[in-house]
Amino acid sequence: MAVATKKMVYFFGNGHAEGEGDMKVLLGGKGAGLAEMTNLGIPVPPGFTITTEVCIDFYRSGEKWPEGLEAQVKEGLERLSVAMGGARLGDPNNPLLLSVRSGARVSMPGMMDTILNLGLNDQTVQGLIQRTNNPRFAWDSYRRFIQMYSDVVLGIEHEEFEKLIDARKAQKGVKLDIELDADDWKSLVDEYKELVQKRLGRPFPQDAWEQLRGAIDAVFNSWNNPRAIKYREINGIPHDWGTAVNVMAMVFGNMGPNSGTGVAFTRDPATGEKRFFGEYLVNAQGEDVVAGIRTPEPVSRLEQEMPEVYRQLVEIYQKLEHHYKDMQDIEFTVQEGKLYMLQTRNGKRTAQAAVKIAVDMVHEGLIDKKTALLRVEPKQLDQLLHRMVDPKAKVQVIAKGLPASPGAAVGRIVFRADDAEAWAKRGEKVVLVRAETSPEDIGGMNVAQGIMTSRGGMTSHAAVVARGMGKCCVAGVGAALVDEETKTLKIGEHVLHEGDWITLNGSTGEVILGQAPLVEPSLAGEFGELMQWADEIRKLGVRANADIPRDARAAAQYGAEGIGLCRTEHMFFAPDRIKAMREMILADDTAGREQALAKLLPYQKSDFIGLFREMKGKPVTIRLLDPPLHEFLPHEEAQLKELAAEMGVSVQKLRERVESLKEFNPMLGHRGCRLGVTYPEIYNMQVRAIFEAATELAKEGFIIVPEVMIPVVGIEKELELLRKNAIEVAERVMAEAGVKLEYRIGTMIELPRAAVLADQIARQADFFSFGTNDLTQTTFGFSRDDVGKFLGVYLQKEILPADPFQTLDQEGVGQLIRMGVEKGRSTNPHLKTGICGEHGGDPASVEFCHRVGLDYVSCSPYRVPIARLAAAHAQIKYPRA
Amino acid sequence: MAVATKKMVYFFGNGHAEGEGDMKVLLGGKGAGLAEMTNLGIPVPPGFTITTEVCIDFYRSGEKWPEGLEAQVKEGLERLSVAMGGARLGDPNNPLLLSVRSGARVSMPGMMDTILNLGLNDQTVQGLIQRTNNPRFAWDSYRRFIQMYSDVVLGIEHEEFEKLIDARKAQKGVKLDIELDADDWKSLVDEYKELVQKRLGRPFPQDAWEQLRGAIDAVFNSWNNPRAIKYREINGIPHDWGTAVNVMAMVFGNMGPNSGTGVAFTRDPATGEKRFFGEYLVNAQGEDVVAGIRTPEPVSRLEQEMPEVYRQLVEIYQKLEHHYKDMQDIEFTVQEGKLYMLQTRNGKRTAQAAVKIAVDMVHEGLIDKKTALLRVEPKQLDQLLHRMVDPKAKVQVIAKGLPASPGAAVGRIVFRADDAEAWAKRGEKVVLVRAETSPEDIGGMNVAQGIMTSRGGMTSHAAVVARGMGKCCVAGVGAALVDEETKTLKIGEHVLHEGDWITLNGSTGEVILGQAPLVEPSLAGEFGELMQWADEIRKLGVRANADIPRDARAAAQYGAEGIGLCRTEHMFFAPDRIKAMREMILADDTAGREQALAKLLPYQKSDFIGLFREMKGKPVTIRLLDPPLHEFLPHEEAQLKELAAEMGVSVQKLRERVESLKEFNPMLGHRGCRLGVTYPEIYNMQVRAIFEAATELAKEGFIIVPEVMIPVVGIEKELELLRKNAIEVAERVMAEAGVKLEYRIGTMIELPRAAVLADQIARQADFFSFGTNDLTQTTFGFSRDDVGKFLGVYLQKEILPADPFQTLDQEGVGQLIRMGVEKGRSTNPHLKTGICGEHGGDPASVEFCHRVGLDYVSCSPYRVPIARLAAAHAQIKYPRA
Repeated sequence: MAVATKKMVYFFGNGHAEGEGDMKVLLGGKGAGLAEMTNLGIPVPPGFTITTEVCIDFYRSGEKWPEGLEAQVKEGLERLSVAMGGARLGDPNNPLLLSVRSGARVSMPGMMDTILNLGLNDQTVQGLIQRTNNPRFAWDSYRRFIQMYSDVVLGIEHEEFEKLIDARKAQKGVKLDIELDADDWKSLVDEYKELVQKRLGRPFPQDAWEQLRGAIDAVFNSWNNPRAIKYREINGIPHDWGTAVNVMAMVFGNMGPNSGTGVAFTRDPATGEKRFFGEYLVNAQGEDVVAGIRTPEPVSRLEQEMPEVYRQLVEIYQKLEHHYKDMQDIEFTVQEGKLYMLQTRNGKRTAQAAVKIAVDMVHEGLIDKKTALLRVEPKQLDQLLHRMVDPKAKVQVIAKGLPASPGAAVGRIVFRADDAEAWAKRGEKVVLVRAETSPEDIGGMNVAQGIMTSRGGMTSHAAVVARGMGKCCVAGVGAALVDEETKTLKIGEHVLHEGDWITLNGSTGEVILGQAPLVEPSLAGEFGELMQWADEIRKLGVRANADIPRDARAAAQYGAEGIGLCRTEHMFFAPDRIKAMREMILADDTAGREQALAKLLPYQKSDFIGLFREMKGKPVTIRLLDPPLHEFLPHEEAQLKELAAEMGVSVQKLRERVESLKEFNPMLGHRGCRLGVTYPEIYNMQVRAIFEAATELAKEGFIIVPEVMIPVVGIEKELELLRKNAIEVAERVMAEAGVKLEYRIGTMIELPRAAVLADQIARQADFFSFGTNDLTQTTFGFSRDDVGKFLGVYLQKEILPADPFQTLDQEGVGQLIRMGVEKGRSTNPHLKTGICGEHGGDPASVEFCHRVGLDYVSCSPYRVPIARLAAAHAQIKYPRA
Repeated sequence: MAVATKKMVYFFGNGHAEGEGDMKVLLGGKGAGLAEMTNLGIPVPPGFTITTEVCIDFYRSGEKWPEGLEAQVKEGLERLSVAMGGARLGDPNNPLLLSVRSGARVSMPGMMDTILNLGLNDQTVQGLIQRTNNPRFAWDSYRRFIQMYSDVVLGIEHEEFEKLIDARKAQKGVKLDIELDADDWKSLVDEYKELVQKRLGRPFPQDAWEQLRGAIDAVFNSWNNPRAIKYREINGIPHDWGTAVNVMAMVFGNMGPNSGTGVAFTRDPATGEKRFFGEYLVNAQGEDVVAGIRTPEPVSRLEQEMPEVYRQLVEIYQKLEHHYKDMQDIEFTVQEGKLYMLQTRNGKRTAQAAVKIAVDMVHEGLIDKKTALLRVEPKQLDQLLHRMVDPKAKVQVIAKGLPASPGAAVGRIVFRADDAEAWAKRGEKVVLVRAETSPEDIGGMNVAQGIMTSRGGMTSHAAVVARGMGKCCVAGVGAALVDEETKTLKIGEHVLHEGDWITLNGSTGEVILGQAPLVEPSLAGEFGELMQWADEIRKLGVRANADIPRDARAAAQYGAEGIGLCRTEHMFFAPDRIKAMREMILADDTAGREQALAKLLPYQKSDFIGLFREMKGKPVTIRLLDPPLHEFLPHEEAQLKELAAEMGVSVQKLRERVESLKEFNPMLGHRGCRLGVTYPEIYNMQVRAIFEAATELAKEGFIIVPEVMIPVVGIEKELELLRKNAIEVAERVMAEAGVKLEYRIGTMIELPRAAVLADQIARQADFFSFGTNDLTQTTFGFSRDDVGKFLGVYLQKEILPADPFQTLDQEGVGQLIRMGVEKGRSTNPHLKTGICGEHGGDPASVEFCHRVGLDYVSCSPYRVPIARLAAAHAQIKYPRA
């Protein structure tokens, strides 16, 4: 019983398409694009699209064609024949040649195959020769078809055919395909057919309809080939979407001097400049352009060579850009003076181009600001904010590590932080190379152009500090052997010594021999304009992590609205301070500690004055001492001796004290507020310094609201005690100064216990700042300094989708953050919430923070623009009141 | 306007009391007890109780007596006068003397003061002389009263009065109070009064009513003295409960040879034996018994000396025990042949006595089994399960550390694990003394009698391993300097060398010089009976943590229902295995690792066979390799050299490899399932060993359900992958053996991420075992090896109520456990849940596990009885279906 069957085939051609651009679900991306171009009156070779529904049916019914499909495809072929002036599939005199391509709802590049020149056989090849008067072209086309069809449909490897070509070239003593003539290709067609017969035990299909059926089946089957399945799993594409099949008339750019093929962009994809930009080759096929055998001409030359085609092309590209309201990447073919468009899609572009195009298009009235913002990926901005190795330069890459902190560095190798300082003092540019860095190296890192380590991951000390400094870092160069004793760096056969030149590419992780040329970042006017639109839209605040005035200045320049994290410990590593710090640590009692702390107070105070001045009244959150004390002590014998002499104690006593401070797991040790509880005098000094600085500036007219942040809190009573202490000191200092300031005392939420008991802790806090680095460490039980030992395998085996220290683990760590926010607000509705740490500058994590209702994120100064844009994206996608 | 005032004073005397035993809230514990005894017809000196409500009113109204109180107290005095045959407060001829004591709802020992002999003044002392014909007694009583009253009510320090006595003794050239005569006391009364006059500028109050008012006020005030407030805070007693005041007629045991005073227990508080047990002194007051100047007689002697009194006393104690249905601790006084009971309360007892008394009383029909179970504190059982330092022995304690693992050890000091093994081999008993232990010391720990460390806390390696072994350990002896190089142990002025004798008391943390006598534990029949009742009642399963057959045997003996945690890593430290283990770790590739693992397989298999045999079909949960690999490698240079030679690699290469395996935070490093993911061959070998062992025994007729436990899981995909691997191996081994077994694959929940995503993880798990040690570490961010640096201060400042590694942090860590159970069961209703780790043997934590619905707890074999009893308690208090 015949029932009215569903429409399964959508025709396009002769200025009209049955489908439309918004039918991607049914027709796939390519099919919808071809339909859309056809409807716009743009010349597209005619053809038809078999819908994705057919593919789904095909699988449901055990890989059989649904009833009615054959009839609809044949009807499509009829209409195609009409559109092509009577050429018919398999007609020996006027053969119609087809391309068959897949086309899923979303682009799955390289996943499924394409078959060109379908319809050629021993008869139709003759017809092609007659009609083109070009036997070489015809035989070459035929052998290409056999090769491609055999590979995709019949399952005979491409290489087997290539071997036959190689044999023939060897026999003729030539090297290139173009040196083979019509007869060679004709013979090869025979050899190809023999090969197929031998492999399959049956001849290559001569029936054009059989060819087409096989090709369509092959495209359907390719939807479930292993690499396609894998690709969908990785990208979260449902397996039941299916693919469409596009069957199109072939057009040829290699039919003589009035034929050609080209690729173009409607604007410059490198700079964003509004100019038509592309290349073409006369008398060539797309493959030839890719093969790079001939050098293509710039598309503008077409204006002289084929003025009418060029005029058409310009009209078309303008129409397409206007229609799609985005820069297009187009492919075209000219067959004997007639222009055909084969594809149009949104073009890939550099960050700089993305920004310029988006802003220009707003000014041109093409798109609105929100659309413009969404056109720039926040991550791309990273490229704009750092010096780069000149992409055009030829360089010798000798190793690859992790791209730990973007940018580039050229310098002479030094192996010790103090060497770095010494060399820098005499004006040398240096790159600090170490197995790993420790807080003691901070001075050397500060003066180095960049840092390379052989150990440690994306969140190792070197990486974190370098990112904070906006300094290039390549970490975890596994192939490098760093010998700090002999001052040699061994990478494969290369042995580098102190003073040798090296270049680091922190954006790719490459280690380059010698001095590579660099290019400076340029923040063009469009960048600032886009950032301003982002600020108008976003609801999430963006602050920066900055410890010193220089960083604070950078933060302000990059648009930070305050400092979300000032780590006070880095201040203690300066040579003039570390001594007093060590005195404090090694003191026998409270009195001794207080004496040493009194020496540190003026330093801290001046640090804070510097920060407050730079931030000009914007909020500054200062975290009290966080790392365990042993991080400040020397570990090497020589340094121990020096310190002992300086401090007037025996080396033995000093060693014992250093030994007694050692910890098995410093990350989980005597640090953060635990120091504040056991040695209240330390935090008291710091709070005093903050309020002395703030009151002093207040007298100068600054409006300052200091935010004191207490780290590593896990128990309400910790915070209760330390808050009480801090308030006492603050009130005392303000009374002394005769100045009354508003101030806030809050805490880091960086332990799971703090998150699950946030309702208790919020009773003692004016604000929460989620310390997602440590929270990730404790939630996963991952030491970020050690995770490199297995993280690679985890990513490779897809146990983790991403490094959780770079992209927030939303379902695990994120669940604790959400719990922390909700519980915290349940007992303290005025609680301010933010995050600081690496994730504050990661776009996906910023989006999460927006959705979870945080007030702000805080990140490295150099990632502030990224966070601003990401926050705008988040607001556009998930509007918040 | 007069209104009917509330009853504020409750009289007792002459066989009738206005109050009752269950009125503790109103009358306090002591007042209710006195009322109860009175109503039982037991001779109690008459008196009255001022209610706790009065105390609350007193504070509310600014420390004033509520209206009507004075009248009610005076009425009480009237009734008291009648009961005392007409003696009246302040009557010079027939003075009534009173004691005034506090008495809160719950006992607050030593918190508040007592005043005796109230009512004496310059006149009444004469009346007392006349009536007693004993001037020395009268004057001594008077001066005692002045001294006590001045101290408690007037605020003049006790010592000032004592100085006057000392001066007088010096003047007379005598040493003891009893050498002073009536005149001496009389003169001292004068000197006392002068002292009061001088200090206060007013005379000692002579008016007896004023004395009483002052005493009552003082008792009320003592409710809010700092130590009482502190005590309530520590013990969670509300501040608004208030105290009652007990005013009672004085009786005197020091009025001659037919007077006396005593303290007795209705059963033996040391053994629980059912016999009347106590002491008394003829012609003495309670204070004299305490002072220890005269040696008291056993209470049984009273039978000869005062047969009628003894008969009465026996009748009373039997009545009291029968009434209170518990062993009583009673105080009595005989005044001139008349017996008075001054107090009765439930008596304190040893663990052994607690068990025996509880079981005996069930057999006597006094109490039911549930009551009996509740009479024994689970923690007390610890005493019963270990050898102890003889409590009667005189020992020289030279230091105190943490009571890390109970029991006692006597042995000769050795400083290195291999020395311990060498000494033990030649039959010496040794105590291993180290700064801290590491897994390499396991052999030495195993042969030592006990372990002492100078560093590390209750959950340090030494402590955990020792508890697991049921071996005595004193950890963190801060005063000890352990020099492993020179083999000396310095504690204060004591310098001990290798071979010196030492005794450890692991139950108290004491370090004792020389060889102290020990007593063996005896598990009397009552113990077994009580345990059986516990098993009948409890719903929570109790398993043990056991790694080797010997531990498994102990576990079974102590009543474990299975093994909840078998740590496979300890098996690798035996000398014959560590070599293959190190080969495996240092192998360059998978093939090399597999080769070494093949050598380990037979060892593992035989281990498991041993365990399965011991457990006779009870479930055995085997955890796959957990610690980071570097724990198995030698760190000292000499050992490195030896190993390098043994393995035929260069020391340099070996050192590099050891170095490369080092971790900053091993707790958060490359361990647990992360090893299983990166080196699947390790877990595969272990799973093979488990199933080869199980199938072999299955052929012998054992019924074995192996439980494979994968540690440190935080991500569902980790478990998914490793479960798949394990199933593959298990199925292969069973196919090889031709045996089909039921088995379970589950995971530890020991990371916060696993708890919050338990719904995902449960999809891959047959069971969850909460690893509360690590979960506590990660939730708090506390390294248990380093927490000693600040935990003391945290406990002292009451930031934490207890060491969270000993008693589960219910609100934080417990919240994650609850979440884990609920979420886990939401996706897998058949999920089995338990905990393993230190908390499994802690009664409060066991109760939590019961309430949260876990299926079982698992703890050290030696704590299994504690857990069984605690689980019974939990079921009685919080019945579970």
